Amino acid sequence: MDVFEQWESDVRGYCRIFPTVFKSASNARQVDENGRSYIDFFGGAGVLNFGHNNMRMKKAIIEFLESDGVAHSLDMSTTAKRDFIEAFVETIMKPRSMNYKLQFTGPTGTNAVEAALKIARRVTGRRSVIAFSHGFHGMTLGSLACTANDYFRNAAGVPLENVTRLSFGHPLDGMAEAYADSSSGLDQPAAILVETIQAEGGVNVATREWLKELQQFAKDTGALFIIDDIQAGCGRTGDYFSFDGMGLDPDVICLAKGIGGFGTPLAMNMIKPEHDKHWSPGEHTGTFRGQGISFVAGREALRYFEDGSFLDGVKTKGARMNERLQDIAKQHSVHWFEVRGAGMIQGLDTKDGELSKKVVAACFENGLLIGGCGTAGRVLKLIPPLTISDDDLNEGIDILENAINKVAEAA
Amino acid sequence: MDVFEQWESDVRGYCRIFPTVFKSASNARQVDENGRSYIDFFGGAGVLNFGHNNMRMKKAIIEFLESDGVAHSLDMSTTAKRDFIEAFVETIMKPRSMNYKLQFTGPTGTNAVEAALKIARRVTGRRSVIAFSHGFHGMTLGSLACTANDYFRNAAGVPLENVTRLSFGHPLDGMAEAYADSSSGLDQPAAILVETIQAEGGVNVATREWLKELQQFAKDTGALFIIDDIQAGCGRTGDYFSFDGMGLDPDVICLAKGIGGFGTPLAMNMIKPEHDKHWSPGEHTGTFRGQGISFVAGREALRYFEDGSFLDGVKTKGARMNERLQDIAKQHSVHWFEVRGAGMIQGLDTKDGELSKKVVAACFENGLLIGGCGTAGRVLKLIPPLTISDDDLNEGIDILENAINKVAEAA
Amino acid sequence: MDVFEQWESDVRGYCRIFPTVFKSASNARQVDENGRSYIDFFGGAGVLNFGHNNMRMKKAIIEFLESDGVAHSLDMSTTAKRDFIEAFVETIMKPRSMNYKLQFTGPTGTNAVEAALKIARRVTGRRSVIAFSHGFHGMTLGSLACTANDYFRNAAGVPLENVTRLSFGHPLDGMAEAYADSSSGLDQPAAILVETIQAEGGVNVATREWLKELQQFAKDTGALFIIDDIQAGCGRTGDYFSFDGMGLDPDVICLAKGIGGFGTPLAMNMIKPEHDKHWSPGEHTGTFRGQGISFVAGREALRYFEDGSFLDGVKTKGARMNERLQDIAKQHSVHWFEVRGAGMIQGLDTKDGELSKKVVAACFENGLLIGGCGTAGRVLKLIPPLTISDDDLNEGIDILENAINKVAEAA
Amino acid sequence: MDVFEQWESDVRGYCRIFPTVFKSASNARQVDENGRSYIDFFGGAGVLNFGHNNMRMKKAIIEFLESDGVAHSLDMSTTAKRDFIEAFVETIMKPRSMNYKLQFTGPTGTNAVEAALKIARRVTGRRSVIAFSHGFHGMTLGSLACTANDYFRNAAGVPLENVTRLSFGHPLDGMAEAYADSSSGLDQPAAILVETIQAEGGVNVATREWLKELQQFAKDTGALFIIDDIQAGCGRTGDYFSFDGMGLDPDVICLAKGIGGFGTPLAMNMIKPEHDKHWSPGEHTGTFRGQGISFVAGREALRYFEDGSFLDGVKTKGARMNERLQDIAKQHSVHWFEVRGAGMIQGLDTKDGELSKKVVAACFENGLLIGGCGTAGRVLKLIPPLTISDDDLNEGIDILENAINKVAEAA
Repeated sequence: MDVFEQWESDVRGYCRIFPTVFKSASNARQVDENGRSYIDFFGGAGVLNFGHNNMRMKKAIIEFLESDGVAHSLDMSTTAKRDFIEAFVETIMKPRSMNYKLQFTGPTGTNAVEAALKIARRVTGRRSVIAFSHGFHGMTLGSLACTANDYFRNAAGVPLENVTRLSFGHPLDGMAEAYADSSSGLDQPAAILVETIQAEGGVNVATREWLKELQQFAKDTGALFIIDDIQAGCGRTGDYFSFDGMGLDPDVICLAKGIGGFGTPLAMNMIKPEHDKHWSPGEHTGTFRGQGISFVAGREALRYFEDGSFLDGVKTKGARMNERLQDIAKQHSVHWFEVRGAGMIQGLDTKDGELSKKVVAACFENGLLIGGCGTAGRVLKLIPPLTISDDDLNEGIDILENAINKVAEAA
Repeated sequence: MDVFEQWESDVRGYCRIFPTVFKSASNARQVDENGRSYIDFFGGAGVLNFGHNNMRMKKAIIEFLESDGVAHSLDMSTTAKRDFIEAFVETIMKPRSMNYKLQFTGPTGTNAVEAALKIARRVTGRRSVIAFSHGFHGMTLGSLACTANDYFRNAAGVPLENVTRLSFGHPLDGMAEAYADSSSGLDQPAAILVETIQAEGGVNVATREWLKELQQFAKDTGALFIIDDIQAGCGRTGDYFSFDGMGLDPDVICLAKGIGGFGTPLAMNMIKPEHDKHWSPGEHTGTFRGQGISFVAGREALRYFEDGSFLDGVKTKGARMNERLQDIAKQHSVHWFEVRGAGMIQGLDTKDGELSKKVVAACFENGLLIGGCGTAGRVLKLIPPLTISDDDLNEGIDILENAINKVAEAA
Repeated sequence: MDVFEQWESDVRGYCRIFPTVFKSASNARQVDENGRSYIDFFGGAGVLNFGHNNMRMKKAIIEFLESDGVAHSLDMSTTAKRDFIEAFVETIMKPRSMNYKLQFTGPTGTNAVEAALKIARRVTGRRSVIAFSHGFHGMTLGSLACTANDYFRNAAGVPLENVTRLSFGHPLDGMAEAYADSSSGLDQPAAILVETIQAEGGVNVATREWLKELQQFAKDTGALFIIDDIQAGCGRTGDYFSFDGMGLDPDVICLAKGIGGFGTPLAMNMIKPEHDKHWSPGEHTGTFRGQGISFVAGREALRYFEDGSFLDGVKTKGARMNERLQDIAKQHSVHWFEVRGAGMIQGLDTKDGELSKKVVAACFENGLLIGGCGTAGRVLKLIPPLTISDDDLNEGIDILENAINKVAEAA
Repeated sequence: MDVFEQWESDVRGYCRIFPTVFKSASNARQVDENGRSYIDFFGGAGVLNFGHNNMRMKKAIIEFLESDGVAHSLDMSTTAKRDFIEAFVETIMKPRSMNYKLQFTGPTGTNAVEAALKIARRVTGRRSVIAFSHGFHGMTLGSLACTANDYFRNAAGVPLENVTRLSFGHPLDGMAEAYADSSSGLDQPAAILVETIQAEGGVNVATREWLKELQQFAKDTGALFIIDDIQAGCGRTGDYFSFDGMGLDPDVICLAKGIGGFGTPLAMNMIKPEHDKHWSPGEHTGTFRGQGISFVAGREALRYFEDGSFLDGVKTKGARMNERLQDIAKQHSVHWFEVRGAGMIQGLDTKDGELSKKVVAACFENGLLIGGCGTAGRVLKLIPPLTISDDDLNEGIDILENAINKVAEAA
């Protein structure tokens, strides 16, 4: 570990939680340089929905490389991008009767959110964005202003303005009336920015009713309704979008993480055509917008959604994860553990950051990679690759259960 | 082009300047789907220092993929990252007696700049950053505040605060005294953020004297001196850093674009150890910080700097580019063209955005990809791959010369 | 009216509502240059608690002038200021066992609020202030940020930052918990700034319970609890402070308007000694802080509070005002009029800005000066001098009643 | 002094410099409660241009009081205000062929500046105001943002935004071009706000040439040109406006301090009619805008300007002050004292705040009230009443000279 300690910045975090040097990885397994194999419930923080080194993607990428495909194209047109767009339109948008324009922003989630905020402010001519407690949207100043956690916010070193914070999941009684009152002192919102499931915030799951209320509130105030589906989208919940079937019609949808499929960066905003036309060419740019490898892998990822079998599998495995966690919670009823989630994003809220930290460490010792989220990291978040085998899934949960038993007994 | 027009966002820009669909690319050549080949003087906006589909990198990447290397690792430790770090330390830092900690930020330039601003504000406890007219540092709100161009700034939709703007290259007479005066009304700066060569801003080259004056000003005011070497670094000027040999000692150096080598994203800040220790673990994060493919390709890129021969070649080709442009300027002395640059970033300032636009179009017609920069895009910027063959370089400049002749005659 | 139309700024407002030229005034009567007499229910927007040209004050001022008293002293010590301070301590503070330091700010309410915000931010080291919908605190940028009304806010021309807005009178369930959660994304408050009765905001009267809840919330979050008693204080409600007897213990109390007594400017903050010591000398200044005439008149005003008889009279007259308004409301039950107030600040909420405007105009026609407040001016606000005679009070309400009858019938 | 120490806020400043309790005052003399008489070179910080208890004003005020004149009128029309306006138009504006609308803002300088900034931002639709190092414009957040001194700025507790700071008196070479360049990163200014003589800032006198350059710069950029003549206007420099005869044509002129004449508050903006029409009625308000006593006294003040004799006297006395100070400076050439000023505002820059403080203290001991200004208070500022007798003026300077000799010798 010397090289990292000596030369890499002290800001690094996950290497302290998973203190080894990884050498290879395949589907839901990572192997360190000593040959030790770990089951991966961390899933690249939501990126690796289709597993490490997904075979189909790997094959497609190597072919692309060997054919001298255009690896880097900014926002020029390439055949690889066209293939991706066509597949996305056919596989995802058409079956849902969706009509959106696709913007490839800088290839990270934070860049997608920044671009979404820009277009919302441009369309409405307003500054203030409504975001939510426990929300996470990125680290650059525009999206960081929408992120709730103090630890990240304090690193900004400047006031984070132009955001009004509401309580996630809290009913909006009378809000539209308050905003309509010219003596309320409330800034008219440019946008409402929400995650349907707050992943980093603690696997907090919004109800359909509340999301519809939010959408109506956006309509009433003339704000854009933006869903940040960066971690919960791309199949994670058992549907392609986390809000499929809820009757929602967002103005902008932010995607990243799982959209590229292989772990190489890609980010894409879906924007209603009537809003998109407010952009002028090149007004929001970024060097790495056109990622050939990510387009190729992302195109392969879309094949998983050509029929419903893959998502059915996600639902089945998600139900099992939930059941097992409910069991664990029941066994430890004295701790008031709480299970939350949808599909294959499941959280076990231990209500106790210290306990959670010890469980994470014990899991690592026993060959499972899992991370904490929520305030003080007190929620154990399970986001294995959607392609994980039943055996690995079961074994991973066994390790988790044992770790919890051990830690909880000692507490 | 239909798919892009129908489904891709109107914000796309370069596809309008280079209106074709690219299918493959090799070193300094891009080929469209009709088989037409273009010489590339655009170089992925500074990313493709080692050419499209660089053979050595391609080979290394395919091997990495076939061995199931860890493609995505956030800030966990991997063998691929260690190889990169070791090579960077040995090849770049040690020969220069440099001592920096390396931070892999989110993999785009704007993310590197945002992280650099955070650490500067953290270290100094101050808010205000000094940036320069014509500077370009990215599109997210923190770095956009430092970017000078109105077209980009207006897209923010919110006031861009906490930045004081000075004139690039303008002497700093009396500035330190002014800042020391408690009645000056000037905010003490957290950082001075500067490009040694403003690439997007119009290929404006700072003198060594001015940069040393700036560095002294930073010392006098207690600000961090940050060089954004994202476009001008990684060999572009004929040295590894654009400021090599100037006797500068920046507190933070921002790198991206060329550091990954192949066109896949990577960004890295070099931070003086005494500043780096102000970070707390995980305070600045980002999903795509650990890019295996980029580490592998970037490690290959570093081999070009193991001895001086590659950089000698850059200097030789750069000198030729400059000579040819000087000749062109002389032929059109009536237009007061101006040539500026260093190594293989060279700009021809036509002083006329309309003329420049026509030249770009004429070049494209004749098989050369070249972009404009500076106010109204009036400066033709030549940043071919450093690995371009002499023949392609000459042919490209011939095409440019003919285009200028044609357009200038018609004007 | 020519001179005003020709030379005075278009920004003037009240002269349009009361379109005549006033020449003299005495207690609750103003007389215009044509000799027409008006009963004054407007009371100088809350300044003239002791009537126009209060005889005792007038006498004291003339004596002061004839003795060459110090009319203007900034924050130097003068005998006139000492007399005022001593009387305030003896008459107001000691009977209430209050311990506050007195700060004479620039002599307008907005200046007092700005100073209060400064000390709160200094004491806490925080930026954000909690203020309320329908609140009114002044027109300069610091206090305007706390003012809710859009009409005033839009005139700023800059974003009004560093204020979080809550709904006036709305229960604070779970707020302290939310603020204690490091993932709430809520800025820790420097202060809670509240009027016990929102005068400009529509005569909205806070309950004792809610105010105590607010005070507890301030304690829980470490914020200063600031009561802006500028319009409701100095005897207006039948007590000296509007919150007398509520068991409140504010950190800062802002006074202005009635404190000077005669209509000449004065403003004074009462600050808990432990907070006051955070000021450095001269850090918050202002040319007109030491107003000799206002000190002399203000000292006379304090004599009204040496025993309870004056306040008893206020309570009696206030009760009568309320009864009469309740009667009027009852007669017009079809309009859902609502009566709100305390002591001699009483509002009749007509729920209809157009109707209210017509009533104001009809009153003026018939010799009564009265103003509207609240959203669209829909609330008729009665704030006659506390010294008004029973006859003038009755006659004024008769005029009002007739006007309402006339306007309501026509509606 | 006990009462003040015990009950008045620690923020008070001047009472520490002049540690006695004043009881009466007449023209250029203040007398403390022990009967000690002081010559007043402090002049109420520029308010008392016509002396303490000016006989003509005192008489007019008492008559006004005895006739029950309207002491407080907000922005209603009164005969007293009309008299003032008519006199101002006839005496000041018409002889200068000026055409301005008069806005009576809240009656302090800071309120006038806040109103001026609002109208400038409204007219231009821009946010950023250009202000100058060493400038002083008030303590409320809008004007404080324009004030340069750190001591005052730090008390804000929030970032002071929307102001760009330039160096006072520094040539503007190339500024208009820089602002016209869309890649300069400079915000287009809403206004340029300048004092022709920075009084609090250290008696820094702008040249006519620089002011004309500024005005041209404002025109070129479409900004409003605002002169803050609050301390230097109303006769102080030997002309009514400090910029009389310079060929300037400001868009807005801010007046306060001397405009009311007697020491009671008044503030007035003069606004070009084409700008004034951007106000909506009542958009900028304030309780104490209509000050009857100040109108009456201010109307008397205007009589001093009906012919040139008074201003001639100011010029003569100002010249004497300057000569005497030059002599003093010459005697102490070893200290590099510098004399600056115009008319009866004269400053002796001692270049040493500690020395200056001792001189102020020694003057007080010997019966002279004088204040320091500029960085660390190093500049002794002489602003006696314009009506001071020759004897008092000479005696005051004698005291000052002796104090300097004593202190300088000891240094």
